[in-house]
Amino acid sequence: LRIAVIGLGLIGGSVALAAREGGAEVVAWDVSEEVAEPAFAKGIAVTIGGPLDQVVAGADVVFLAAPVGVLPELLVDVLRTAPAGCVVTDVGSTKRPIVAAAAGDERFVGGHPLAGAETAGVGHAREDLFKGAVWYLTPTVDSDGLLYERLHRLISSFGAQVAVIEPEQHDQALALVSHLPHVLANVLVSQTADVLSGQGERLPATGPSFRDLTRVAGANSGIWGDIYLSNRDALVEAIDDTVARLQRVRSSLASADRAAVVQWNDRAAADRRRLLDGQLSAGELNEIRVSVPNRPGVVAELALELGRAGVNIADMALHPAPDMASGVVILWIAGAAAADKAEQILVSMEFPVFRA
Amino acid sequence: LRIAVIGLGLIGGSVALAAREGGAEVVAWDVSEEVAEPAFAKGIAVTIGGPLDQVVAGADVVFLAAPVGVLPELLVDVLRTAPAGCVVTDVGSTKRPIVAAAAGDERFVGGHPLAGAETAGVGHAREDLFKGAVWYLTPTVDSDGLLYERLHRLISSFGAQVAVIEPEQHDQALALVSHLPHVLANVLVSQTADVLSGQGERLPATGPSFRDLTRVAGANSGIWGDIYLSNRDALVEAIDDTVARLQRVRSSLASADRAAVVQWNDRAAADRRRLLDGQLSAGELNEIRVSVPNRPGVVAELALELGRAGVNIADMALHPAPDMASGVVILWIAGAAAADKAEQILVSMEFPVFRA
Repeated sequence: LRIAVIGLGLIGGSVALAAREGGAEVVAWDVSEEVAEPAFAKGIAVTIGGPLDQVVAGADVVFLAAPVGVLPELLVDVLRTAPAGCVVTDVGSTKRPIVAAAAGDERFVGGHPLAGAETAGVGHAREDLFKGAVWYLTPTVDSDGLLYERLHRLISSFGAQVAVIEPEQHDQALALVSHLPHVLANVLVSQTADVLSGQGERLPATGPSFRDLTRVAGANSGIWGDIYLSNRDALVEAIDDTVARLQRVRSSLASADRAAVVQWNDRAAADRRRLLDGQLSAGELNEIRVSVPNRPGVVAELALELGRAGVNIADMALHPAPDMASGVVILWIAGAAAADKAEQILVSMEFPVFRA
Repeated sequence: LRIAVIGLGLIGGSVALAAREGGAEVVAWDVSEEVAEPAFAKGIAVTIGGPLDQVVAGADVVFLAAPVGVLPELLVDVLRTAPAGCVVTDVGSTKRPIVAAAAGDERFVGGHPLAGAETAGVGHAREDLFKGAVWYLTPTVDSDGLLYERLHRLISSFGAQVAVIEPEQHDQALALVSHLPHVLANVLVSQTADVLSGQGERLPATGPSFRDLTRVAGANSGIWGDIYLSNRDALVEAIDDTVARLQRVRSSLASADRAAVVQWNDRAAADRRRLLDGQLSAGELNEIRVSVPNRPGVVAELALELGRAGVNIADMALHPAPDMASGVVILWIAGAAAADKAEQILVSMEFPVFRA
C-alpha cells in the first residue's frame, strides 16, 4: 500500500508513522521547511513545496492533513492529479466545505480523527496516536465501495474506531462537543480576567471547575481561527441556543425560583449521565455477513444506516463476487446488543444477512 | 483547644479529623441520624439534634459546616449561645449573607475552604483534605484580633493556605470561578443532549474539550440549589456579561471577520496565561514582624491590605504586649518577591516592620 500524506503536522505525521508501522510505503509533502528536520528525525520522507503530482502519483490512499481553511482548495488540486483507483481523505474538523469541494468525486471520503488536541507539530507525532480514538468518516452515495473499504480498514489498522456520519450531522455535533466548548472557555477566561483585574492585582485561587472549564481557552489561533470560521453557521446556531438557555436560568435565578433552578440542575445531571452512557461501548466483536448488490453507494448507504442507529462498525471487509455484480460485506460490531440491532437494520434494508 | 463542628458532612468531618490530628478536643452536631454511623466509624463524637448549647458551650472555635442556605439562621443561634472568647466561622461558599447575619459580632470570621468538590458526606472525610488548599477568610474591622489569629493559625495547621478577602469580592470572584462554570457546564450538557437526541439515538464520541467543560454539570442539587440562590445577584451579573460576550463573538463569526475572531482567541490565550501566572505562588517562607497598636480590627485591616495586593499570608502569630496596649504580629510569606511587597505595604501603613 502506498500512502501520501499532504501536510505534515501532528496528525499527518502520526498517520505517516501508523501507516508505516502497518507495512505501507509512505511519502509526505508540506509547504514549510520547518517540518523537514523533525520529519527526518522520525524517518519520514518529506518533499517540501513544489508540485503535488509526483507525491500523489501512484498513491493508493491520500491523506490531506493541512489546516482546515486550505483543505477545499487542496482537495480540488489533488483530485485533479490523483490516480483513478486512489482514495482521497482528509482529517479536517469541519466536513461540509470539503465534501462540497469534492463535488461527488467517487474517490473522496471525508474524515476526522478525534485525537491530538494537546500538542501540535510533527515532532509530537506518534504511531499510536489514534489507538482507541474515534475517527469519523463521511462517505456519501457517490463514494466508491471498494475505495471506502480500503480506507476504513487502513484507519481501523491504526487502532481507531471508525464512526460513519453525515457531514451536516458531524458539523452540528462538533459545533456542540468541540467548537462551542472552546468558545465558552475563551469567554469565561477573558471575563474572569477582566473583572478580577478591575479589582487590583488579586487573582483568586480557582477551584477545579474553573480549571476544567478554561483548560482549552485560547487554543492555537493558526488552527482554531480556521476551525471557528469553517463551521461558523453551525457554531452561530449553537451560540444562539446557549444564550437562550443562559437567559432562562438567569430569569429563574433573578426571581429566586428554587424549584426551577433545582429542576434545571437535575435535568443537567440526567443529561450528563445519558451522554456518558451513550459513549460506553465495548464487548466482543460480532461478525455479520451481508450480501449486497455491487452498485455505487451501497457500502456507504449501509454504513450510514448503522451509524444513524448509533452502531459503530469496528472493522469491515468487502468481497466482490467474481462477476462484480454482487458481493458480501463482512462487518464486525462490538457488543451483542449492538450486533443484534445491526442485524435488524440490515434485514429491514432487505439485504440477506448471515451470522456465524 | 476545644472545637465544635456544626454540620457533619465532608467538610465538617474533615475539619473534625484535621483538628483532632492537631491535638484539639472535637465535638460535632448534626440534624441527620444518617451521619451517626460513619462518624462513629471515624471516631468523631457527634450529637444528633437537640439544643446547640451543650455542644457550643466551652468551645474555643465553632465551625458552621451546614448547607449554605441555613447558615445565616444557624449563625444567629450559635452567636446567642457561644461563649465570649469563642471564634465562630463557617465554610459556606457565599459570604455576604452570613457576614450580614453576624451583624458586626466581634467573634465571627467568615470562611470558605476550596476543597472537596468531588465527593460528599462524612464517610469521605479525611484529615488531609485541606492540605495545600486555599481557605478564604473574610474578617471585617469588627473582628477581634486575637480570635482571628486563633482561627488563622488553626486553619494553617490543617495545611491550608489562608487568603483574606472582602465578602463582596469573594462572592463576585466565586461567581466567576465556580458558580458560572457550573452554569455553563449545565447549559452545554443539556443543549448537547437535546440537539443530539433530536438526531435519533446517535450521541457522538466527544472530545476532551466537551468532557472538560461538562465534568461538573448537574452537581448535587441539595448543595448547589443553595449555592446558586445564595449568590444569585453576583451570578446574574456574571451571566449577563457572558451573554454580552457570546453575542460579540457570534457577530464576528456571522460576518466571517477572521481578524476579530483571531484577536478574540489570542486575547483568551493571554488572559489564561495571566490567570495561571497569578496562581503560581511558591518559595521559601519569609518572616516579617510588625508592631501594631492593640486596637480592634488592626489584624483584619493588615491582612486585608496584603490580600488586596495579592500577598498570601502563609502563617501568622500575634504577641500582645503585657499591657495589651500594643503587640507584634509575625507574618510568614511565601516567596521573596511577595515578602518584599508585603514589607512595602506594611511600611506604607506606617507600622514599624522588622525583617530577620
